[in-house]
Amino acid sequence: MEKVREIVREGRRVGKEDPRRVVHAFKVGLALALVSSFYYYQPLYDNFGVNAMWAVMTVVVVFEFSVGATLGKGINRAVATLVAGGLGIGAHHLASLSGPTIEPILLAIFVFVQAALSTFVRFFPRVKARYDYGILIFILTFSLISVSGFREDEILDLAHKRLSTVIMGGVSCVLISIFVCPVWAGQDLHSLIASNLDTLSHFLQEFGEEYFEATDDGDIKEVEKRRKNLERYKSVLNSKSNEEALANFARWEPRHGQFRFRHPWKQYLAVAALLRQCAYRIDALNSYLNSDFQIPMDIKKKLEEPLRRMSSEAGKSLKEMSISLKKMTKSSSSDIHVLNSQSACKDLSTLLKSGILNDVEPLQLISLTTTVSLLIDIVNLTEKISESVHELASAARFKNKMKPTASLKKSDSVSIGRAAVPIKSHDSDDHVVTILCDADVSNTVDQSRGETSVDSCQHVAIKIDDDDLVHEKHEVGEIHAHTSCVSCDPSDASDVLDSSNKRINSSN
Amino acid sequence: MEKVREIVREGRRVGKEDPRRVVHAFKVGLALALVSSFYYYQPLYDNFGVNAMWAVMTVVVVFEFSVGATLGKGINRAVATLVAGGLGIGAHHLASLSGPTIEPILLAIFVFVQAALSTFVRFFPRVKARYDYGILIFILTFSLISVSGFREDEILDLAHKRLSTVIMGGVSCVLISIFVCPVWAGQDLHSLIASNLDTLSHFLQEFGEEYFEATDDGDIKEVEKRRKNLERYKSVLNSKSNEEALANFARWEPRHGQFRFRHPWKQYLAVAALLRQCAYRIDALNSYLNSDFQIPMDIKKKLEEPLRRMSSEAGKSLKEMSISLKKMTKSSSSDIHVLNSQSACKDLSTLLKSGILNDVEPLQLISLTTTVSLLIDIVNLTEKISESVHELASAARFKNKMKPTASLKKSDSVSIGRAAVPIKSHDSDDHVVTILCDADVSNTVDQSRGETSVDSCQHVAIKIDDDDLVHEKHEVGEIHAHTSCVSCDPSDASDVLDSSNKRINSSN
Repeated sequence: MEKVREIVREGRRVGKEDPRRVVHAFKVGLALALVSSFYYYQPLYDNFGVNAMWAVMTVVVVFEFSVGATLGKGINRAVATLVAGGLGIGAHHLASLSGPTIEPILLAIFVFVQAALSTFVRFFPRVKARYDYGILIFILTFSLISVSGFREDEILDLAHKRLSTVIMGGVSCVLISIFVCPVWAGQDLHSLIASNLDTLSHFLQEFGEEYFEATDDGDIKEVEKRRKNLERYKSVLNSKSNEEALANFARWEPRHGQFRFRHPWKQYLAVAALLRQCAYRIDALNSYLNSDFQIPMDIKKKLEEPLRRMSSEAGKSLKEMSISLKKMTKSSSSDIHVLNSQSACKDLSTLLKSGILNDVEPLQLISLTTTVSLLIDIVNLTEKISESVHELASAARFKNKMKPTASLKKSDSVSIGRAAVPIKSHDSDDHVVTILCDADVSNTVDQSRGETSVDSCQHVAIKIDDDDLVHEKHEVGEIHAHTSCVSCDPSDASDVLDSSNKRINSSN
Repeated sequence: MEKVREIVREGRRVGKEDPRRVVHAFKVGLALALVSSFYYYQPLYDNFGVNAMWAVMTVVVVFEFSVGATLGKGINRAVATLVAGGLGIGAHHLASLSGPTIEPILLAIFVFVQAALSTFVRFFPRVKARYDYGILIFILTFSLISVSGFREDEILDLAHKRLSTVIMGGVSCVLISIFVCPVWAGQDLHSLIASNLDTLSHFLQEFGEEYFEATDDGDIKEVEKRRKNLERYKSVLNSKSNEEALANFARWEPRHGQFRFRHPWKQYLAVAALLRQCAYRIDALNSYLNSDFQIPMDIKKKLEEPLRRMSSEAGKSLKEMSISLKKMTKSSSSDIHVLNSQSACKDLSTLLKSGILNDVEPLQLISLTTTVSLLIDIVNLTEKISESVHELASAARFKNKMKPTASLKKSDSVSIGRAAVPIKSHDSDDHVVTILCDADVSNTVDQSRGETSVDSCQHVAIKIDDDDLVHEKHEVGEIHAHTSCVSCDPSDASDVLDSSNKRINSSN
């Protein structure tokens, strides 16, 4: 009894985690009930007979969670059945020419050679990634057709019926998966990357607070909750296989929503790889938050201003990227924050060169400077991530940024949980942009969120800028920043930034 | 033509990477040719008829690369077919009681409910890990039996034939995969962990050389080769999914070689997780090797002695663990190296407290101290890994260490590529042990290597020590080390070690 209750609880949790799972279960049930009508409906049964079972079988093995996976498997199965069927009939014909004694031997040899070759080909990495299932079905169909053909005379008829039932089963899967509450792998990948950006941004924005506040006070539950919230970044560490699978499925998907057929899914993986790099650094940084070996606050305070600024600005730039990715707009507002964090880096190096840490004990120094070094790495990675997201935006032909020029029109109608957050640049240029964004950020892959974010743009009056102009300005700003950096300390500051860049490059 | 040549080249590469793949392909061909004899051999065909196709199908989908995966799928398939067959007959019987009009409706409802429920259950993480395939087959068989039963009268006979052909197909897969050049997932996991230990050890042993040598001289090809060799550790970063899959398969495997049925596979995953932690740190360390921002050698040299010792001793201890894992013996010789690296840590902190770095420029200091801090982390992780490997050794009931008391008897017969390497402890106790080990260490998963390592022990006269005694001695040594550390600097040195420990703990 306890066991049953536990299962029910687990079921509720699984369903709550992603309600689309429940819908998927219903879709599979529907498809199967539909296909089994082949048996009940007399005219259909008269036509296909026992072969109707292939339709049932196809539905069971082809129907996957996302449209891309279903399409990929369906196409693999249909093509493999067709090709293997043809070859199987050929093999059967060839064997039957040789007379009744040699025929079974020849057929056995065919089956052996075909199975061995195909099985070996499945080990090729490129084949394994996309066509593994197709090869499996190829082996299966070839063996069944060529061998069972030995007994049945109407082999052509058999192959034809098998193929048409497989196609019917596959088509009903694909249609149901596309038209009944579709789950697009591409959309999932897109949301996953946006949510990963957001998760890392959250850590960086909170880092200053955590590092420079005394953590003893406050009630323990609150602290633990915050800590748990902070450690959401851990999900990014091992997301590689998930991302690759989604990208693989997404390639099969037709145009949907704002995603074209040849959407640059590879570029998503490039962004994801950089995010993982960043998460490794954050993992190391996090270990210093939890360390029992705390550096006295008065020593930390010496570097507080630039360190806080570095992490919070890097976090803000990631947040901006996450928002512009969710909205699928080109945006350069993240660049400002990247520049800000870089200038904080320079301030920090000036501060360090002033000898502010000369009287710090060596062991405390080690812990402090490691934090510094990790943050410098993260700042440099943020720049790379920003570049990579820009590349993605142009490759995916995101729209140019919608920029609200008037104030909110229906600000009262903004629902709870979403607030107008002013994102101010610290530079004194005119890039003060007000953007609607989610006040609470869920860490699960939530694709509806992305859509509503886009919807919410309709509440504000928008003006489309020529984004290139803005870009140009930024590039000038960047060059300027570099020059000023070189002028303020000719060798080290630029060196330390460049070298960290190189280090990040090389560790890719 | 060029395309064909490319495919052949790729095929050669894939085959060379793991020759067992070629063997596997032959095994599948063999199994299929065997099972298709159901069709050719008249008595068998008379008995099973078209149902013989289920045997072919079972072989195609169940035969996997490793014994564990094949067994897992085979058992899943057999049990699921049995249970679903029973339930399908029950459903059919129930529906047939209701009269010919309601029967198809009732059957459709059964199929719908069953498919929806089972599909949902597949999302449960624990089910997904081990029984995913079983549930798939359950849906398939239930649908086919209950629905096709609507037409056929001899449903019991059908279910019985289907089940027996499935079992025959499954049994031939399992037998061939066990008795013809078996590939054990457990052995693969074991070798993978040992090889990962070895890879990380290689980096740490070479690190001192790379960090403290001027890298400009020497020919470029040589340097690149060394660098590439050094960066083999990158394979460890993303090995998680592979390890988990192997552990999952291994649980299905029966006793083989020195692996029992309930071998502690989970403990391998625990060791692997720590190794990945260590690889993250090594990745960061590696970025400092490739950095263009090089610290002047005279500054580096100040810390050379303890840093070199820390990394090389940590590397040696990992190497020892790798060897004892490969040989499946309990061994405490790695503990000595762990202690040595810890004492180097203490020397380093004494050195740092002496103010040796007071006149170093802040930016150079950051880079240098980060290296120090990462190495301290790695040393602490090494201790954790060592503990975890010890736990594994006792949980897996490894033999006590074989210790050669005489010199090699047939040292002349030692083949090329394997050499007697004396591994000396730096402590002045009596732990000078001569162990046969591989002179070149391959980075691919090579299970034959592990076996021959064990075999090579037969060349030396061995004496089995009471390992507990040795252990006890080490524990005393360890306590002593801690005490001396406390006495030499009451707060910081022990603090910095402890805190790094905590950090590592918390980042697990």
